[in-house]
Amino acid sequence: MTRPKAYILLIGNELVRGSVADVNGSLAARELERIGFKVVGFEIVGDDDQAIERVLRASGEKAEVVIVGGGLGPTDDDMTRGAAARFFGRELVFNPEAWENIEAWFRNLKRKTAPDDRRQAEFPAGAEVIPNRHGTAPGFFYRQSQTRYYFLQGVPREFSAVLEEEILPRLRKEFSLPPPQTFRTLKVFGISEARVGAIIFGLARSFPQVTVGTRFYFPEIWIDLESEDGKALEAVVSRARSEFSSHLFGENEERLESIVGKLLTEKGWKLALAESCTGGLVAHRITEVPGSSNYFERGVVTYSNPSKVELLGVSPDLLKKFGAVSAEVAGAMAEGVKKNSGVEIGLSTTGIAGPTGGSPEKPVGLERIKIFASAVALDWLRRYLMGEKEGHGS
Amino acid sequence: MTRPKAYILLIGNELVRGSVADVNGSLAARELERIGFKVVGFEIVGDDDQAIERVLRASGEKAEVVIVGGGLGPTDDDMTRGAAARFFGRELVFNPEAWENIEAWFRNLKRKTAPDDRRQAEFPAGAEVIPNRHGTAPGFFYRQSQTRYYFLQGVPREFSAVLEEEILPRLRKEFSLPPPQTFRTLKVFGISEARVGAIIFGLARSFPQVTVGTRFYFPEIWIDLESEDGKALEAVVSRARSEFSSHLFGENEERLESIVGKLLTEKGWKLALAESCTGGLVAHRITEVPGSSNYFERGVVTYSNPSKVELLGVSPDLLKKFGAVSAEVAGAMAEGVKKNSGVEIGLSTTGIAGPTGGSPEKPVGLERIKIFASAVALDWLRRYLMGEKEGHGS
Repeated sequence: MTRPKAYILLIGNELVRGSVADVNGSLAARELERIGFKVVGFEIVGDDDQAIERVLRASGEKAEVVIVGGGLGPTDDDMTRGAAARFFGRELVFNPEAWENIEAWFRNLKRKTAPDDRRQAEFPAGAEVIPNRHGTAPGFFYRQSQTRYYFLQGVPREFSAVLEEEILPRLRKEFSLPPPQTFRTLKVFGISEARVGAIIFGLARSFPQVTVGTRFYFPEIWIDLESEDGKALEAVVSRARSEFSSHLFGENEERLESIVGKLLTEKGWKLALAESCTGGLVAHRITEVPGSSNYFERGVVTYSNPSKVELLGVSPDLLKKFGAVSAEVAGAMAEGVKKNSGVEIGLSTTGIAGPTGGSPEKPVGLERIKIFASAVALDWLRRYLMGEKEGHGS
Repeated sequence: MTRPKAYILLIGNELVRGSVADVNGSLAARELERIGFKVVGFEIVGDDDQAIERVLRASGEKAEVVIVGGGLGPTDDDMTRGAAARFFGRELVFNPEAWENIEAWFRNLKRKTAPDDRRQAEFPAGAEVIPNRHGTAPGFFYRQSQTRYYFLQGVPREFSAVLEEEILPRLRKEFSLPPPQTFRTLKVFGISEARVGAIIFGLARSFPQVTVGTRFYFPEIWIDLESEDGKALEAVVSRARSEFSSHLFGENEERLESIVGKLLTEKGWKLALAESCTGGLVAHRITEVPGSSNYFERGVVTYSNPSKVELLGVSPDLLKKFGAVSAEVAGAMAEGVKKNSGVEIGLSTTGIAGPTGGSPEKPVGLERIKIFASAVALDWLRRYLMGEKEGHGS
């Protein structure tokens, strides 16, 4: 069974100039491939009437489905609606019902609409409006000869939500799609990408029907597996689990912090944090997980020595003898926050995070060290909760 | 003076399937714009002979310079060389000098070449080889009628190095380029995108030589200005500053947290934080700024009521009377952390951040509320430090 072809168009001056790297295209490609389409290409053009018309025409010759992201906002540089109307040979028509929804969105936020907001309720005559429950600008659908065009807002959060809620369900209904590819992402921490690659490409050699790729998602390595043959995929996953053992911490959407949350919930334990070099990032990651208030009791970010003494009971002598960045002080911090809060687990971080380079506004080195240290801390906690002896939790 | 046009082609199955998001395209666009080209578009296609030929042809009609990334490796799915040779109507010819360099690269790494590696030394007859000092596959240059094609390896590290070392110097020599564009990004918080757009596009109407764009960088609005005419650009910036007044908080790489850091440093004040709904995110943002240990004394993340009482001295009666999510408790939290730490400024956040939707692994709503609340807190702090009366700092 041949897969129907899809093409992705992304519109925005900021994209074509390289001020921003596109994220919508790869998301849409992944999702379309997942449900059985073959994505044959992307094209990115600026906010330019003629360029938009040209790519709408060209993509219609290449694919049965064209996803268009961007240029639906309320400002003068949002040109997609107008260019689409010209390409389809239709007038732009104001849609009162869509406008009511936009007004309701603003009322909800207790904000007023501006006159330019009305543009977001104009669509080429004959287009079907696609609701957007995540922002102001609705999308729209238009069919021109053999090609279905779907237009979405370019704000990544809105693009991804409308794609998921509106576009994919329509496509599943309108096309008879081949069995979907099965995808699996395995997440590994604590081994180099080259070693991960050597192991996984080695394993996969016996399963030519499984496509393998690796990605460095700092500081984790992600392994992407893809196949139409679910059994072969499972075989690779199971061998990878045994090869990577506890370095493999999760799959697909799982994160270190969500795994830690599950383990804490299973044990019925509560956690308290004492952070120094990670500056609140561990607490931020822990509290990104819904329900974390059930197991996260408190955190302290003790940047100064007095705060370590006052909030955690670290002894001034210990600080003097070993310095703030020492295993001894880290241990005392974790013990202090555990004791003060009465929880089962205290976790601490300490170290020097920066500044190590970049400009004051772009502290790349600093950010990377914080991210790395937070991953190490969460991974230690995960291993400790799984009963490994080398856990550094207190 | 008109800018010569450039087009960017990116080739790879992993890109077109969305397994990996492209990074070469936006880098090349930024660099080409910086030296005076106008990038008119990107196209991404898979490792497919016919698709590559098609995009080589189509891009030649749109631009004088085409940068092609990817598909130059040694494996069966590297098809760019062959497709280019067919499109140019030339044979693929083995280049002994290029092969010597490839062999030297392998010798250097104490590795052996494989038979397939020889493919990397084949180029369309008449092409000029472009050295790659960062990997095995050299690039090449070919001129077809009015269009110059530059082919580069797709590995991002090699692509960026060869672009910088080989391609940009050639382009500067071969083209007479206009003075570079000046770019400026203004950052606004607290007004809707439509209102920002109406104001800035209104202002810019008197300055047709300045190109304007707006972006929603949640929850901030970013205004991109671009012009060859530095004076006109400055005029727009200065009018925007007066129109947006204190809603305009920064420019270019500045962030709310770096502005707050500057203001605290100027005043010689120290900051302490008491976070509830933001769960450590404000501390994380503050400590992203190098040098923040000079003004950030401590933070506490008080998720539980006991932690608010014990760490901040919030009275249990106040918690009972008004609830944890109240202006009264927020005030007591900020006062408590200020008093305990002896700093000049205490800042607190409280509210209900979630869970409000998404899956346990993808808590979209929660994340947004935390980001929004952290921006509001940092913006209040900024306004308070600038001497505005409505600051909610304590």
